[in-house]
Amino acid sequence: MIPKLNIVPFVSVDHMMSLVLAKGVERFTVELAGYIEEDFRRWDMFDKTPRVASHSAEGVIELMPTSDGTHYGFKYVNGHPKNTREGRQTVTAFGVLSDVGNGYPVLLSEMTILTALRTAAMSALAARYLAPKGSRAMAIIGNGAQCEFQALAFKALLGIESVRLFDIDPEATKKAMTNLAGSGLTLEPCTSAEAAVQGVDIITTVTADKQNATILTDNMIGSGVHINAVGGDCPGKTELHRDILLRAGIFVEFEPQTRIEGEIQQLPAEHSVQELWKVIRGEAPGRADSHQITLFDSVGFAVEDFSALRYVRDSLTDTAFSTDLDLLADPDEPRDLFGMLLRHQKVAAAAP
Amino acid sequence: MIPKLNIVPFVSVDHMMSLVLAKGVERFTVELAGYIEEDFRRWDMFDKTPRVASHSAEGVIELMPTSDGTHYGFKYVNGHPKNTREGRQTVTAFGVLSDVGNGYPVLLSEMTILTALRTAAMSALAARYLAPKGSRAMAIIGNGAQCEFQALAFKALLGIESVRLFDIDPEATKKAMTNLAGSGLTLEPCTSAEAAVQGVDIITTVTADKQNATILTDNMIGSGVHINAVGGDCPGKTELHRDILLRAGIFVEFEPQTRIEGEIQQLPAEHSVQELWKVIRGEAPGRADSHQITLFDSVGFAVEDFSALRYVRDSLTDTAFSTDLDLLADPDEPRDLFGMLLRHQKVAAAAP
Repeated sequence: MIPKLNIVPFVSVDHMMSLVLAKGVERFTVELAGYIEEDFRRWDMFDKTPRVASHSAEGVIELMPTSDGTHYGFKYVNGHPKNTREGRQTVTAFGVLSDVGNGYPVLLSEMTILTALRTAAMSALAARYLAPKGSRAMAIIGNGAQCEFQALAFKALLGIESVRLFDIDPEATKKAMTNLAGSGLTLEPCTSAEAAVQGVDIITTVTADKQNATILTDNMIGSGVHINAVGGDCPGKTELHRDILLRAGIFVEFEPQTRIEGEIQQLPAEHSVQELWKVIRGEAPGRADSHQITLFDSVGFAVEDFSALRYVRDSLTDTAFSTDLDLLADPDEPRDLFGMLLRHQKVAAAAP
Repeated sequence: MIPKLNIVPFVSVDHMMSLVLAKGVERFTVELAGYIEEDFRRWDMFDKTPRVASHSAEGVIELMPTSDGTHYGFKYVNGHPKNTREGRQTVTAFGVLSDVGNGYPVLLSEMTILTALRTAAMSALAARYLAPKGSRAMAIIGNGAQCEFQALAFKALLGIESVRLFDIDPEATKKAMTNLAGSGLTLEPCTSAEAAVQGVDIITTVTADKQNATILTDNMIGSGVHINAVGGDCPGKTELHRDILLRAGIFVEFEPQTRIEGEIQQLPAEHSVQELWKVIRGEAPGRADSHQITLFDSVGFAVEDFSALRYVRDSLTDTAFSTDLDLLADPDEPRDLFGMLLRHQKVAAAAP
């Protein structure tokens, strides 16, 4: 069969939901973490450009491209904190995967849901290398759109059994409790961040305020804890008190980007951090001992989106979870674009 | 009516062809040139980033973003010279227009056909400011995918009556002759570039070879001619002999980009050129006199694609030339992405 060269498979929001449900959220995050791990192991093959941001008073629109030399991917993502007031998402995203050899897109996909899943998979993957052995209890501070995905990814990848939840808005915590009711996790709603972190092995912060906040202070962090800091991801947006950073072993995705966007924007540029891919490759140590505080200062990097697009594309085989999009003008004779237009006119005129 | 916040209007290749045919190519280029002119007049409002290119041995994939503070647009475009061997287009493109205020895309459109039209509209618009008064005859050297669009845009915007055609492949010229047969233009196939430029007022070069070629030499260019150099548009790809550049008044879209990609990559960086928007605004002189050789060293800039997306969006009102794409995850409760997934499961389970 001759492939239709004009067609790009498109995964809509509806289809993404069906794909995720068909796999199950836990299996999806486990498999996706496998793709991310694979790509982090071949980190040096990737073209690592910083994201291209267009800032305005209301928010930011970013393009995040990368390539491994065989495929090229980019994600479009916005961040508009005031959007929720009008019933819109703060963050929405879509992405494209292309063939480097001919430049043709091979997948267009929604990425709002996919980004929540890839962020959760990335967090849990990092924790597998950094969290204390035998971690069973975690706290999630910030119970918004990403909370449940984080909980299920940590259950699936690390064997987390109980989750302590806190949000400044009790309705958000209630929503997360309801959504996770059938998950098999033991859930504990808490009335403060201090209460939430009591006795846990892992703390995830995933709050939404666009400011330098102090979700965690130094006195709240006991020895040996792993912190997964997800919410601080752009200039002027951090979640941790600086003193915590000074006590912790800090792990990042891509240092040049995290210096600008992560918690470590609070630290001098010479403060030592470790890129996670080196730990995954066994080229750098992860957690030093059971007393060390480890911090994954996550901001989200283009390679993770690339892995996610690659995973979705591979998962589509023999499913009905995509539609054909007539995105690429592909005349029979490549140099005859105008002739294609004329033939289209004839076909339209001949139609009854 | 409440707008469906998950929906982005999508213009497929089929719909773009229908839209272009419904308007007619000439009217389309005239109206589109109006949008470009409007945007060039407010040049200072645009966020002008250089394109973000990912190069490989086979070609290049580029993202071209820009914003006027109200809307944000980007184009994805590839350039793979060997693609035609496998029946693919050398260049394909698509683009997105978004609302800066909330970051939500408002249009996804094919841009392979649209780019050919915007390039032709841009060329003819520049010629309106630079070509000798009363121009009636033009030469088009390179009779590939863009040739017919150029011819019709110059007919519509400048009143060009006759076109002399040359391509190293006679089949390409034949194709263009056939496609333009009913256009009302007087067409003259030529056997050499030297023959094609005889007696014309305007010369368009739009060849495809990725190399430093010499489509035009100095002795071929008489006094007063306007050259519209379209094909030389990336590092290492030029069409004109350097001596022509030294005799010509040179006009460009965005100087920093053209220094890298245009004909003027052959010249030292201090060689004076004029950005076209200043001429359009009346802030800089265009053609000096009837003897001057003028050169529009066109490489294609993001603002033109932005104008094109804006024009297409405005043209869609009350037409059937778009479909609804379920691209944006937009739960009823913005912070409850996971709940949307659960509700989708219930709906799917309840289906017969």
